[in-house]
Amino acid sequence: MGRVSMDWRRIALISALVGIATMGDGRLAAQQVPPAVPFAPLESEWRPIAEDELLVMMLEGNRRIVIRLAPTYAPDHVANIRALARSHWWDGESVYRVQDNWVAQWGDATEKKPLPSGMKALPAAEYDFPIVPLAQRLSRTDAYSRLSGVSVDGWPIASDGQKSWIPHCYGTVGVARDAAPDTGTGAELFMPLGGSARRLDRNYTIIGRVIEGAQHLSALPRSMAAMGVYDDPAQRSAILWVRLASDMPEAERPGYRYRAPDNARFAALIEAKENPMPPMISLGGVDICDLPLEVRAVP
Amino acid sequence: MGRVSMDWRRIALISALVGIATMGDGRLAAQQVPPAVPFAPLESEWRPIAEDELLVMMLEGNRRIVIRLAPTYAPDHVANIRALARSHWWDGESVYRVQDNWVAQWGDATEKKPLPSGMKALPAAEYDFPIVPLAQRLSRTDAYSRLSGVSVDGWPIASDGQKSWIPHCYGTVGVARDAAPDTGTGAELFMPLGGSARRLDRNYTIIGRVIEGAQHLSALPRSMAAMGVYDDPAQRSAILWVRLASDMPEAERPGYRYRAPDNARFAALIEAKENPMPPMISLGGVDICDLPLEVRAVP
Repeated sequence: MGRVSMDWRRIALISALVGIATMGDGRLAAQQVPPAVPFAPLESEWRPIAEDELLVMMLEGNRRIVIRLAPTYAPDHVANIRALARSHWWDGESVYRVQDNWVAQWGDATEKKPLPSGMKALPAAEYDFPIVPLAQRLSRTDAYSRLSGVSVDGWPIASDGQKSWIPHCYGTVGVARDAAPDTGTGAELFMPLGGSARRLDRNYTIIGRVIEGAQHLSALPRSMAAMGVYDDPAQRSAILWVRLASDMPEAERPGYRYRAPDNARFAALIEAKENPMPPMISLGGVDICDLPLEVRAVP
Repeated sequence: MGRVSMDWRRIALISALVGIATMGDGRLAAQQVPPAVPFAPLESEWRPIAEDELLVMMLEGNRRIVIRLAPTYAPDHVANIRALARSHWWDGESVYRVQDNWVAQWGDATEKKPLPSGMKALPAAEYDFPIVPLAQRLSRTDAYSRLSGVSVDGWPIASDGQKSWIPHCYGTVGVARDAAPDTGTGAELFMPLGGSARRLDRNYTIIGRVIEGAQHLSALPRSMAAMGVYDDPAQRSAILWVRLASDMPEAERPGYRYRAPDNARFAALIEAKENPMPPMISLGGVDICDLPLEVRAVP
């Protein structure tokens, strides 16, 4: 086949259900050690995401992006983002910057559009916070953090032992700003396209992560101009509208559940991911940005 | 400005030349500690890359990709790749798989095209090798390796203390294969699109890295079909031709030099990257896949 497989969920599910292991290309082989605990979650381990924690952005071409907001970790910025969505501030704006292996950024390309009333003009940065208890902890450190894992409410969490933060993984959403930390409002947002953005950890506020449609941002044409900003406005992707799911008509409203990590099945999943079976050579670890933080759309 | 800056080279160069530090958005501020060693390389620290180590792939739409091959680390696979290029094996084939946050893969979509004579049909996997001396070593471990850094000849190198390997960073080029390790030929190749591919380290052979035009692969439309393989052949990107630079007409031949890492200027660059200046909060490390492994086109 020659296919490098990434479909971890399917592999885990099949393995758990029928007691076999799958190889890199999806073919099946005899399992050497049956999993002590199956990977598949219980039905009760799919927990609802509140409708005002779902931010829906529609790009031209019917490309829908759904962001799970993180009000627990960035309350002031998320309050601003809710105010921006409710005033329809992003409608008619654009994705105006796509820099390869770095970020896609959207909002008002002129960065001069007045903000709606009721917003904090300059909220304090919320890029770190007191230690967050981890539902699951990873075995290995990484280049930017000493402790990392998953919080009970399903967020990737990095830590240096004194502070915790959400790492800049692919698909997370960060607040663009000027040089000083307290200069972002939440109006200009970015999504990391590659692993390089980890170097922004604890320096830029993360307000959520994309749980649907990240590919509509990652596959956009790159700009080779300075900072990756499109030099021709025609290159921008138009934002048709941005709404909180809770403000959308019920029939159009997306619904999502996240997989709860505080249980033995999720622990088994991480352990298996850190120690894949032969013929894969186990490296004994897994990156915080490569965790299977699953979500499920609900009708 | 609200621009998250990634232009590290420019920042480092300006800082070194005029003794000032730049902030995240490219604005200048008073430097607190002048660098002991300037970052900018000496002219003699740009070393040539051999012309038969440059693999040039032209996609439709005049999208040129240049790969630096790694014959020192994957000699058998690189020998195969040279034979494939010389027999024009890839001409008229395609990029047939683009899976989000995973890989772009190219070659013969049917995987049935006969290979040219003179190739090793099933070379042994070359995904790790004896310890490679490092010109520069990074301060921190990561989730997949205990020691990492840069080799004298400019390759990112990870290690567990017993074996060394080239990590699956964005832009590296890997050999697709079936489940068993020794089933890749070099005819089907892939480039990681995001950090998740690090989990393939020491399991898939790396034959080089893209030094020009990676954005022509990373910005391709994602396939949501199984394994990210385009389900409609019309979605594929045609490969017009693939050649070694040494086999191209002299006037069209690209030339490249790489920045030598075995010197104090490169060491200073890494140290500065691991310890950025205020107002950035230093995390004390830098990821092996975020090193400034610069190349320079030469006329």
